Amino acid sequence: MKQKRIAFLFLFCLAVAILAAAAQENPKSLAEKLGFSRDSKLLIVHADDLGETHSVNAATIKAFETGLVNSASIMVPCPWFPEIADYAKSHPGADFGLHLTLTSERVYYRWGPVASKDKVSSLVDENGYFHHDWTPATRINPKEVELELRAQIDRAYAMGLRPTHLDSHQYRLFDNGMELFEVAVRIAHDYKLPLFVVRDWFAGRPYLQSALSPADIVIDHTVTVEPSVPPEKWADFYKTALKNLQPGVTEFVIHPGFADDELKAATRERDTWGAGWRQRDFDFFTSQEFRQLLTDQNIRLITWREIASAARR
Amino acid sequence: MKQKRIAFLFLFCLAVAILAAAAQENPKSLAEKLGFSRDSKLLIVHADDLGETHSVNAATIKAFETGLVNSASIMVPCPWFPEIADYAKSHPGADFGLHLTLTSERVYYRWGPVASKDKVSSLVDENGYFHHDWTPATRINPKEVELELRAQIDRAYAMGLRPTHLDSHQYRLFDNGMELFEVAVRIAHDYKLPLFVVRDWFAGRPYLQSALSPADIVIDHTVTVEPSVPPEKWADFYKTALKNLQPGVTEFVIHPGFADDELKAATRERDTWGAGWRQRDFDFFTSQEFRQLLTDQNIRLITWREIASAARR
Repeated sequence: MKQKRIAFLFLFCLAVAILAAAAQENPKSLAEKLGFSRDSKLLIVHADDLGETHSVNAATIKAFETGLVNSASIMVPCPWFPEIADYAKSHPGADFGLHLTLTSERVYYRWGPVASKDKVSSLVDENGYFHHDWTPATRINPKEVELELRAQIDRAYAMGLRPTHLDSHQYRLFDNGMELFEVAVRIAHDYKLPLFVVRDWFAGRPYLQSALSPADIVIDHTVTVEPSVPPEKWADFYKTALKNLQPGVTEFVIHPGFADDELKAATRERDTWGAGWRQRDFDFFTSQEFRQLLTDQNIRLITWREIASAARR
Repeated sequence: MKQKRIAFLFLFCLAVAILAAAAQENPKSLAEKLGFSRDSKLLIVHADDLGETHSVNAATIKAFETGLVNSASIMVPCPWFPEIADYAKSHPGADFGLHLTLTSERVYYRWGPVASKDKVSSLVDENGYFHHDWTPATRINPKEVELELRAQIDRAYAMGLRPTHLDSHQYRLFDNGMELFEVAVRIAHDYKLPLFVVRDWFAGRPYLQSALSPADIVIDHTVTVEPSVPPEKWADFYKTALKNLQPGVTEFVIHPGFADDELKAATRERDTWGAGWRQRDFDFFTSQEFRQLLTDQNIRLITWREIASAARR
């Protein structure tokens, strides 16, 4: 009897050890942390640039109402921020993050920092707007980046927003080396917010992985339409992407807007991310065709709110 | 013969003395300085708030093209300032002044100072925008007003504008006591620009006259529609004002805009100076009816450029 007990205990310990080893080799995927199977296809349909123009706010709110666009991020320094902050306050369940902003990339319509200009002088041009673009000659001071981004987040909280995540307008915080990415990670940790980072980026930007802690959320894939896609192939691009969607968590980074007078004027110097582009995004992601594809491909929509909640478990 | 000469000299001197005395009693009116008779009816049709929204820029540009609206002023701190600055640069003959701005009076769409926020802290609210309104509790520091207004003018020049005059958004520099008006006058003198001041205001605000120098231009009258005028009486209000126009220089302060999605959203919290108001102004001041009234009433349009030029003579 005693021998039997010892044998059972031995077998039990062996099983635990094997399972533990397996878990180490195959830690829980993000999908599993979210309560889905490892091979499930999970999608965030994420609208960027809220607050930039009224048109973008209005189109995204309308797209949210279809349920097919389910997450977005907001540019705090932009003139229409108060409009979307007000909407967010009255829709506390909606999935709004902050689209941390360091550039003012248009020509006829511009904005500048939330922080005092003299404290973030490396971020502004000679007229006091955020730089239109960063060139090799632009010397961005990471300390000023941190000051400005904290000012943006603090204004958002002060105006009643409770963001679910952080990301970076024009990917400036991801594409410009270790120091700026470290600022983003430090801020995300301080405010206890998940940061939009994608595993697929690690190969090209090794500093991303080294700046993250093991507890940080990393989503698996991202898809965004590029300027090389001609307007008439827009829907095809997204359909192909949906049909080829990989298991795991994918974020579609989209830019809905209405091609009205305001947006046409604000973006008229170039077509990229312009009024037509944004109208096409709105049209596809609110279409019956997109809804049907989600069903046909067995794709489930998830939000950053669910991801943040899974990360805390 | 000698007596005749002496008599002639005497009469000549007498005539000069009488004329000089008459001139002293009746100094040249602004109309006369402009080369018109004292009893001529001269009108500036002046659009306010350019730069605030695209809709206001677009409507004013369209109204300019009719020739019936012939002057405007621009809000430098506002997001659409670059659009109208670009237009002004390519239309150097157009009559653009600066609409010196110290408030951000809307709710869903807002802007802040051109100067560094920490240098003009009395001008901004807890979120870094210009105050929505000034209450008796708002302590506006005149030194900070001066710093901010100089920053606005400097940005305008730096971005290629050559303003013809200065005025004050929401009349803040005229309605709030001697100190702020003195700032406006000092800046106008420094930049050698005429300031929109109206003789009819002197009775209610005696500090205006005492802060001005004798060389300063003062126009005679101003007309602007008030919230008490119901929409259906809009055209009647202006027709009556035109039929009763007094001799001298009058400025009609108007607010053209297109009642499109942008302007409706930007002004939706109240009707005053809202989208409908601005569309009605656009409609009347670009109408054939207005053109006919100008002819019938023998009213001549003049600009601030002509006034500034007369002031230099």
